[in-house]
Amino acid sequence: MKIHNFSAGPSILPESTIKNSADAVLNFAGTGLSLLEVSHRGKEFVAVMDEALALFKELLDIPAGYEVVFVGGGASTQFCMVPYNLMQKKAAYLNTGTWANKALKEAKGFGEVVEVASSKDSVYNHIPKGYEIPSDADYFHITTNNTIYGTEIKTDLDVNVPLVADMSSDIFSRPVDVSKYTLIYGGAQKNLAPAGVTFAIVKTDALGKVDRHIPTMLDYRTHIDAGSMFNTPPVFPIYSALQTLKWLKEMGGVSAMEKINIEKAAVLYDEIDRNRLFKAPVVNVEDRSLMNICFIMNDEYKELEKEFFDFASSRGMSGIKGHRSVGGFRASTYNAMPKSSIQALVDCMKEFEAKH
Amino acid sequence: MKIHNFSAGPSILPESTIKNSADAVLNFAGTGLSLLEVSHRGKEFVAVMDEALALFKELLDIPAGYEVVFVGGGASTQFCMVPYNLMQKKAAYLNTGTWANKALKEAKGFGEVVEVASSKDSVYNHIPKGYEIPSDADYFHITTNNTIYGTEIKTDLDVNVPLVADMSSDIFSRPVDVSKYTLIYGGAQKNLAPAGVTFAIVKTDALGKVDRHIPTMLDYRTHIDAGSMFNTPPVFPIYSALQTLKWLKEMGGVSAMEKINIEKAAVLYDEIDRNRLFKAPVVNVEDRSLMNICFIMNDEYKELEKEFFDFASSRGMSGIKGHRSVGGFRASTYNAMPKSSIQALVDCMKEFEAKH
Ligand SMILES: Cc1ncc(COP(=O)(O)O)c(C=O)c1O
Ligand SMILES: Cc1ncc(COP(=O)(O)O)c(C=O)c1O
Ligand SMILES: [Mg+2]
Ligand SMILES: [Mg+2]
Ligand SMILES: [Mg+2]
Ligand SMILES: [Mg+2]
Repeated sequence: MKIHNFSAGPSILPESTIKNSADAVLNFAGTGLSLLEVSHRGKEFVAVMDEALALFKELLDIPAGYEVVFVGGGASTQFCMVPYNLMQKKAAYLNTGTWANKALKEAKGFGEVVEVASSKDSVYNHIPKGYEIPSDADYFHITTNNTIYGTEIKTDLDVNVPLVADMSSDIFSRPVDVSKYTLIYGGAQKNLAPAGVTFAIVKTDALGKVDRHIPTMLDYRTHIDAGSMFNTPPVFPIYSALQTLKWLKEMGGVSAMEKINIEKAAVLYDEIDRNRLFKAPVVNVEDRSLMNICFIMNDEYKELEKEFFDFASSRGMSGIKGHRSVGGFRASTYNAMPKSSIQALVDCMKEFEAKH
Repeated sequence: MKIHNFSAGPSILPESTIKNSADAVLNFAGTGLSLLEVSHRGKEFVAVMDEALALFKELLDIPAGYEVVFVGGGASTQFCMVPYNLMQKKAAYLNTGTWANKALKEAKGFGEVVEVASSKDSVYNHIPKGYEIPSDADYFHITTNNTIYGTEIKTDLDVNVPLVADMSSDIFSRPVDVSKYTLIYGGAQKNLAPAGVTFAIVKTDALGKVDRHIPTMLDYRTHIDAGSMFNTPPVFPIYSALQTLKWLKEMGGVSAMEKINIEKAAVLYDEIDRNRLFKAPVVNVEDRSLMNICFIMNDEYKELEKEFFDFASSRGMSGIKGHRSVGGFRASTYNAMPKSSIQALVDCMKEFEAKH
């Protein structure tokens, strides 16, 4: 049976990423050695790193004055690296979900944190608007895509202070005007790579402005200066990331991807809206995520939740359980998810409706 | 041509680690999905994590009161995590090499650092002895195996303060009396796994004694409490680590490994000593590393260095160039290195001697 992988992360990757990664584990770049056992300073891996960084920049059209780094530790480590490097006294955060809230809390260890707005009281079912950002904040932090709640900030905001974004779960899903951001970071394990590598896009002139001592490995400067090779980088996840970047380029890049993602999401949201059994907890259409599509049973059909889960699972739908903090269902539809898998899920929903 | 992989790290891994890792990239635990695209919270990967942690403890015979964690960021991130978690005011460091020195320097950001002894002036060609450790030091930090210079502390020291060890390049090469240490850590990319996962063995009652605020991801407690699943762990490197641990168990564990490592190293050191062309920079036999065996041309044959490198390379010897900071040659002979590869290198040395 074909398994349709709707996992929220780690999550579906292009078939070429998987195949090329497996091949390299057995024989890397014709060396006769495994990718797992070669020096990261050997010319073959240095070429991988160089190409991955270059393609990352090219595909997001990253302007001069920015550098890209690959590090370990996950997006969760960025929650402290951001204030470590950028907060002198005060930072502003938009609280749009579990991850946004964790980032906000972590920053409190470094100075004053202003929560400019929060959708927590309504279980994060929308993106707050109309807030004010203190003009003396060192930066304003947003989480563009809220993986758990299925909301997304799909445009690049214009704000009055440096903008920092966690794009863990929507990087490379659409074109981004990087010039509007001071820092963009994310765990790569959704749209780019297997778990184990984290990316950061850093406006270099924003660094070096805080007084505190920064441990070497937490200083973006360390990784920028060393081309992400200050210490042993996560070799295998970076190799896989390069395979995804190559696939993305072949697919037409982020503009083409955005078009497909809009189409894919529409198919599923339309069915959720139409189908009498289901509804979307995110009501504002403009806030609905194109990457993580949440849906729940309508109140009259609450008791069918487990039955639908079992039915869909029996048809090969995998990873569709909603996050434990919200329940219901979540279909993650990252770049590598084919339309046919979304159609398969929609077919399940229709068939299940016909039965009830 | 058979390639003999003497790389210092990332480095040779057991064939079964490589084969099983490649297989899991294509189909993980019969899920029909790739190991690269499944949730780390799925039951299949949770089982991998549990087994890896249990086997890690079993093979090193880790006593009660200690926990093992897998994190990202490399051993270099541990250089700051150690003082973050353990240094209240003052720490003592033994300076035995480039990595020991980096660890020492990093600690200076957190309090007073006492260098109890250093072999830096003699290009780190021995392990200093007869030093005194201030009795008010919060811990004493050693680097048991100095990957670059080929020296090793092969016994578990008895010291008057909590002992912390970087065992990046000799973990699992011999039995360790863990009860003598408060913390043992290392990058896993030598004797255990591909790059991207770092281990720490932590005596839990040593934690919680410092006043400073510790960022969540830098606090060992975070990872202990969450069973190394606080955030997305480096899934693939951990899977590979498990394969190596299984292999190690089949081989008879660390005692069997130590015996083989002693035999393997003797074959190469004996040839270095005997051969008129070569010598070992590490003169004290008890300081000679069993994992990284350094050798240089004797003074009269200095100009033959490049010729020997080319000759050995043409015979399939890979990764034998000494670190750029010391020159000469370095053969890393980690657990997975078969005796036959060491014999192949020795044969090269003999043949080269016969020609000159
Ligand atoms: C938006 C967002 N931020 C941060 C994280 C945490 O990432 P990591 O597990 O790499 O620390 C996640 C993980 O799912 C996420 O979705
Ligand atoms: C003894 C020792 N410590 C620390 C390191 C640094 O490890 P990482 O690259 O994982 O930061 C190395 C790397 O070779 C090492 O050999
Ligand atoms: Mg969220
Ligand atoms: Mg509906
Ligand atoms: Mg060293
Ligand atoms: Mg000799």
